[in-house]
Amino acid sequence: MRLSLNTATVKKATLAQAARLCAEHGITGIGPWRDVVEAAGGAKAAKRLLDQYELTVTSLCRGGFVSTGSAAALEDNRRAVEEAADLGTAELVLVVGGLAEGSKDLPAARAHVARALEQLAPYASSHGVRLAIEPLHPMFCADRAVVSTLGQALDLAEPFAPHEVGVVVDTYHVWWDPQLFTQISRAAGRISAYQVCDWVVPLPADMLLGRGHVGDGHIDFAPITDAVLRAGYTGHVEVEIFNQTIWDTDPAETVKTVVDRHLTHLGPV
Amino acid sequence: MRLSLNTATVKKATLAQAARLCAEHGITGIGPWRDVVEAAGGAKAAKRLLDQYELTVTSLCRGGFVSTGSAAALEDNRRAVEEAADLGTAELVLVVGGLAEGSKDLPAARAHVARALEQLAPYASSHGVRLAIEPLHPMFCADRAVVSTLGQALDLAEPFAPHEVGVVVDTYHVWWDPQLFTQISRAAGRISAYQVCDWVVPLPADMLLGRGHVGDGHIDFAPITDAVLRAGYTGHVEVEIFNQTIWDTDPAETVKTVVDRHLTHLGPV
Repeated sequence: MRLSLNTATVKKATLAQAARLCAEHGITGIGPWRDVVEAAGGAKAAKRLLDQYELTVTSLCRGGFVSTGSAAALEDNRRAVEEAADLGTAELVLVVGGLAEGSKDLPAARAHVARALEQLAPYASSHGVRLAIEPLHPMFCADRAVVSTLGQALDLAEPFAPHEVGVVVDTYHVWWDPQLFTQISRAAGRISAYQVCDWVVPLPADMLLGRGHVGDGHIDFAPITDAVLRAGYTGHVEVEIFNQTIWDTDPAETVKTVVDRHLTHLGPV
Repeated sequence: MRLSLNTATVKKATLAQAARLCAEHGITGIGPWRDVVEAAGGAKAAKRLLDQYELTVTSLCRGGFVSTGSAAALEDNRRAVEEAADLGTAELVLVVGGLAEGSKDLPAARAHVARALEQLAPYASSHGVRLAIEPLHPMFCADRAVVSTLGQALDLAEPFAPHEVGVVVDTYHVWWDPQLFTQISRAAGRISAYQVCDWVVPLPADMLLGRGHVGDGHIDFAPITDAVLRAGYTGHVEVEIFNQTIWDTDPAETVKTVVDRHLTHLGPV
């Protein structure tokens, strides 16, 4: 499975620096975040830059935050769809959002997500972009994503064609799930992205930043990767790591580690 | 639903102090931890003490940690079964344990749990004690409990009679689960204990200690309580809160807050 560098892994680097590091290490894919794209002069300029390095844009991170019924959020997602199209990627990752301020109504938040998919899917589809629902670890349910399992993401995707709404398999978020392999198999045709990083304990005070390099934690990657391949996924594997220590490291060093770990745990880059 | 005080909520209190606080506040149930029972002179002495206050022992916390295949763990669980019987409770809560040191083999850990249930259930049953599997929040999967959902706990319980192996519904661990209401309904006849505390963000550095008083966080208790009642559960609701700030509070103050929150969110004590 070919390697893609998600730009969140090298937070200090500009898009140009990240792209150059990819090229230097034989990495053929990149998964940029919207803020990095904007800082590079917008999606069209970013596309020209990435084309110079012959990089495949494996996904755009991220749209979403549609769990409160906000019209502004829908509008922002339409912009994200356009950016994905301009970048030449078919996959817009959606982190769906948590509970509305002061609300404890989880079913309502989940209903807002379903409704937002209905509202966004035709627009995305007309741009050749798929909405890629990313289930986040249940510990983020209150504040970041009310979609907590791959099965739930697939239930939300089911009313749509596989090219309209897909799902992200991120090892960090799903590795614990007793239904993981059943649901990966069920996801055949809908896997928009396969992201990896490791589950390291103890988590740091900011639990958003507890992710480790592949191999540093408790996740057994081989069976998950095999299942994703058996489900027919032919894309890259994106390495996306949120970790302050890694962010404080020289990006060149980080990319070298990413490549080393990929060779050990996933195969050729 | 009648109130029971889990002794973990008033960590500073002895069993005698906790029992007296229960009596003073009209609380009719108590859920002791084994260390507190031992400090009170063992299960038989503890039983005499609790009988003086006419307290129902709603569960014993806890057995478990059987996910590595350790024979010593099984033996310790047999002692816990005896203690539960001596305390006059039918419910021994099991926190099943995480991955073995250095292991990434989650299926193997889960298989060890299934095997341990087979080995322990006859002994427990002969003592009139039910093994109560507690699914823990998925964020504890690596280090505390490889059973992460109510559905998974019920799958493990299914080979056994309902009086042999049950499940614990703890709002903190299961509130996020998209299958929660389906699985609570499926749990009819097997609900060993209903425990409550709230999900508060951000979590503290020690994520074990992030639980809040009922009402302080993001959980909507009424529908979960209703579902537990509809599943035929007739026992107490146990308030179990791990939180350093609450532990540093005068236990009398904490019990008063527990009662106030129960009246607001769950009804008469």
